[in-house]
Amino acid sequence: MERTLIDQLKNHINEEVLIKGRVMNVRGLSNVKFVLVQDYKGLVQTVWETEIFARIGDAVEVIGEVREDKRAKGGVEIFGKELKITAPSIEDLPFDLSKPDLNLQLATLLDYRPLSLRHPKVQQIFRLYDLLLESYDKAMREECFIEIKTPKILEAASEGGANFFKLEYFDKNAYLAQSPQFFKQIMVGVFERVFEIGPAFRAEPHFTTRHVNEYISLDAEMGFIDDFGDVMAMLNKILAGMFGHMREKSQNCLEAYGAEIPKVPEKIPQIKLAQIKKIIKEKYNYEIPETTDIDPEGERLAGRWAKEEFNSDFLFITHYPWSDRPFYTMPDKDNPAETCGFDLIYKGLEIATGSQRINDYKMLMENMAKKNISPDGMEYYLDIFKYAMPPHGGWGMGSERIIQQMLGLKSIKEAILFPRDMKRLSP
Amino acid sequence: MERTLIDQLKNHINEEVLIKGRVMNVRGLSNVKFVLVQDYKGLVQTVWETEIFARIGDAVEVIGEVREDKRAKGGVEIFGKELKITAPSIEDLPFDLSKPDLNLQLATLLDYRPLSLRHPKVQQIFRLYDLLLESYDKAMREECFIEIKTPKILEAASEGGANFFKLEYFDKNAYLAQSPQFFKQIMVGVFERVFEIGPAFRAEPHFTTRHVNEYISLDAEMGFIDDFGDVMAMLNKILAGMFGHMREKSQNCLEAYGAEIPKVPEKIPQIKLAQIKKIIKEKYNYEIPETTDIDPEGERLAGRWAKEEFNSDFLFITHYPWSDRPFYTMPDKDNPAETCGFDLIYKGLEIATGSQRINDYKMLMENMAKKNISPDGMEYYLDIFKYAMPPHGGWGMGSERIIQQMLGLKSIKEAILFPRDMKRLSP
Repeated sequence: MERTLIDQLKNHINEEVLIKGRVMNVRGLSNVKFVLVQDYKGLVQTVWETEIFARIGDAVEVIGEVREDKRAKGGVEIFGKELKITAPSIEDLPFDLSKPDLNLQLATLLDYRPLSLRHPKVQQIFRLYDLLLESYDKAMREECFIEIKTPKILEAASEGGANFFKLEYFDKNAYLAQSPQFFKQIMVGVFERVFEIGPAFRAEPHFTTRHVNEYISLDAEMGFIDDFGDVMAMLNKILAGMFGHMREKSQNCLEAYGAEIPKVPEKIPQIKLAQIKKIIKEKYNYEIPETTDIDPEGERLAGRWAKEEFNSDFLFITHYPWSDRPFYTMPDKDNPAETCGFDLIYKGLEIATGSQRINDYKMLMENMAKKNISPDGMEYYLDIFKYAMPPHGGWGMGSERIIQQMLGLKSIKEAILFPRDMKRLSP
Repeated sequence: MERTLIDQLKNHINEEVLIKGRVMNVRGLSNVKFVLVQDYKGLVQTVWETEIFARIGDAVEVIGEVREDKRAKGGVEIFGKELKITAPSIEDLPFDLSKPDLNLQLATLLDYRPLSLRHPKVQQIFRLYDLLLESYDKAMREECFIEIKTPKILEAASEGGANFFKLEYFDKNAYLAQSPQFFKQIMVGVFERVFEIGPAFRAEPHFTTRHVNEYISLDAEMGFIDDFGDVMAMLNKILAGMFGHMREKSQNCLEAYGAEIPKVPEKIPQIKLAQIKKIIKEKYNYEIPETTDIDPEGERLAGRWAKEEFNSDFLFITHYPWSDRPFYTMPDKDNPAETCGFDLIYKGLEIATGSQRINDYKMLMENMAKKNISPDGMEYYLDIFKYAMPPHGGWGMGSERIIQQMLGLKSIKEAILFPRDMKRLSP
C-alpha cells in the first residue's frame, strides 16, 4: 500500500489509506483512543475503538479510513484499523511533547536539543528559518546577484582584532573566517554583484542573548554604486522582497508565536549616529557615552524612536566613527572622522552592518597605515585595487537575529538549531 | 543619466544610454577603436571615432548611442560619445583577459585567483556553479526537504578517523565538522526530510585532482524509507530535477567548454561493488585488489562500463563492505559483511556517497562496539535512537566535483573559487 501524506488526506475521504509519522499525543476516553500523528506535511488525529498500544514519540504506520470532520484542522480524521510501530520509544521522553509549550529553561532546552526540537512550537522556528533562507536566496537572485561560496579556513587573521579561532592546518596555523569580506570584494571585481550564505566564526567571549560564536551570515556586495545610499536602498529592497515572500508562506509559524511579518517601509528611515544619540538622551533620558558605539539599550531606544516617529520597525543608523569601523570602510568625504557605514536596526536590535568600501589602492594603503594594520599576508586582497575596482559596498546580515526579532525570542540561541557559545560545544 | 544594463540595450536602439562595466578588450584600426565592455548582464562592443584612452581591465562608464548590428552577439553595438574611467588599472594585468583561453599552469591560475577569475571563460565556471546551487535548492524544496544549517565547530572528532582539523575554542579543543552527518540524522527525527548546503572540512593529506581540504557538500537525509533503494531513487529524482533546471539556463557556460548537461536516466543503473570489480577485471583487464575500495582508475572504468552498457553517464555502485563504511551504516540483512550503502559515479568519478543508516539503538551500539568506537561524547546523537528514529538514509554530494565533471576540468581546484589544499591557504 502506498503512503499517503497527511496534507493529501482530504482527497481520500472514505478511502482506506496508509500514513506514516510520529505520535505527538495520545488521549483516551472509556472506549475510544485518539492518537495524533505528524508527518512532514501535516498533523492528523486517528481514532481507535480497538485496543492499541502507542505512546508519544513513537514512529508509526497507520492504516485507516479517512473521514470528514469539519471540527478538525485539516477537515479530516482517520478511523484507525491497524497501527504498526515502525520504531518505538524505548525510554520516556524527558518532557511532554503534547503540551502547547515546553516551558524549559534555555539551558535545558539546549541540553536536550535533539529532542526539544521535536516539539511542534519549536519546530515552527526552524520552518520559518528555512523560509528565511529560501527568501533571501530568491530576493538576491531577482536582483541578479550571483551566489558564491568562499573558504572558511584562512591563512591570516587578516581583518584585525583578536576575535579569530585558530586551528592547526597540517604543519601550519590557520584561522576561521570571521566574514567573507575580502572574498566578496574580490568577487565584485569579477561579477559585480555577489551574495553568500555561510557560517561566520567569532571568538568573542560574550554571554549575551544576542551573540553566539558561530552564526549564518547573509552577505552581499555590489559594484558601481554612487554612494552608500545605493547599498542601503538595495538592502531595503531585498528585505521587502524577503519579508513579502515570507509573509505568503509563514502563517503557521507566526500563529504559534502570535507574531507578524513586519511591513518594510518603501524607504527605511535613516539617521546619523551622532544625532540618534542626542535624541535618545533628550527624549528618553538615556545617555550613551560619547566614546562608545551605541549599546543594546541605545539600540532598543533607537528602534522605539523609529516606531514612534515613522511607524517603522526598521532604522538605518549611519556615519559611524572612522575609529570604530574596519580599515576598508570608506570615510565620509565631508567629515573623514565619520564613515559611509551603516547599521540596520530591526525592532531595536542591530541585524545588519554595511558600508561603502574604499576602492582606491592608495587611499586604502593610507587608511591601513593610519590604523596601524600591516599589509603582510593580505597582498592577494590589496592587489585587486591596482586593477580597477569600481566603487562598491555591501552588507553582512545575521540570519538568526532576524528570526529572533520576528518571533520575539528571548535569546538568539533559540533561533539556532545547535548554538555555539563559550561553554556550549555540544550537541 | 540612469544606467542601462547591457542586456537591455536592444530596447534602446538609436537612443543615447549610459553603461557601466569593465573593459575586456581594446582593439584599434587606423581611425576607429573598439572597446569591449562587460557588466553583470552582458558584453557589448563600443565603437570610437574620437581619441580615447582606456585599457583592458579598467572600470568605465560609457555614454553613447545604441546601434543595431546584426553581426554582434547581442544584436547591438554602442557608438561611443564619452568615456569616463571610474577606476583605472594602475598596473598591467599579469595576463591577457582578451585571449579566448588563459592557458596558465594550475598553480599560476590559483596564485593569481582574484584576477584570473575575471577571465570570461573562468567566470563561466562560477556562473554554472551559481546555477548548481540554485538548482539543488530548488529540487530539494520541490520534494519538501527543509533546509537546515548545522554547526561546523564540534566538541569531538566523533565520526572516527584522523581526518579532522583541530582548533582552539576558548579554553578547550574543538574540531571542524567533516560532515553534518549526526545533525542531519537528528533532524530527520524532527522534520523527516532535511537538506543542507555547507562547508565540509577534511584534513586529508592528499595531492590529487579530485580532493581538496574544504568543499561544499550537498547533504540530504530522509525518513520512513523502505530500504536504501528509496534513497537512491530520491537522489536520482533530485539529479534529474537539478540537471533539467541547469540545462535551461546554462547555455553560455556550456558553450565556452564545449560541454553538455547530461541526461539523467529515469533509473540510474545499479551494480554491486563486488560485481563491478569482476567486470572491470574481465572486460578491461584492470585488477582492483580485493581488500581495497574501488580506486580512481576503477571508478573511471566503471563509468566507461555504464556508458557502454546502458548509455548512462551515471552509475550507482552498491553494497560496499561493512569494514570500509562508517559505524552508522546499515549492514545488509542477508550478508552483514556488506552494507546498504552506495556511491554515485558520474562520468567515472564518485560524486556522492550515501546509505541507509542504522536506526535501532541496540544494533547501533553493537555495531560501534564491533568497530571499537567509544560512545563517549556522542551521547547527544546516540540518545535520539532511544526515542523512535524511523528507518532513514541520505547522501552527501560534492558540489564541485559535479562542475568538474560537467565541464571536463582537469582538477577540482578549477571548480572552486579559492581552493584549499595542504599547501594552499591563500588567497
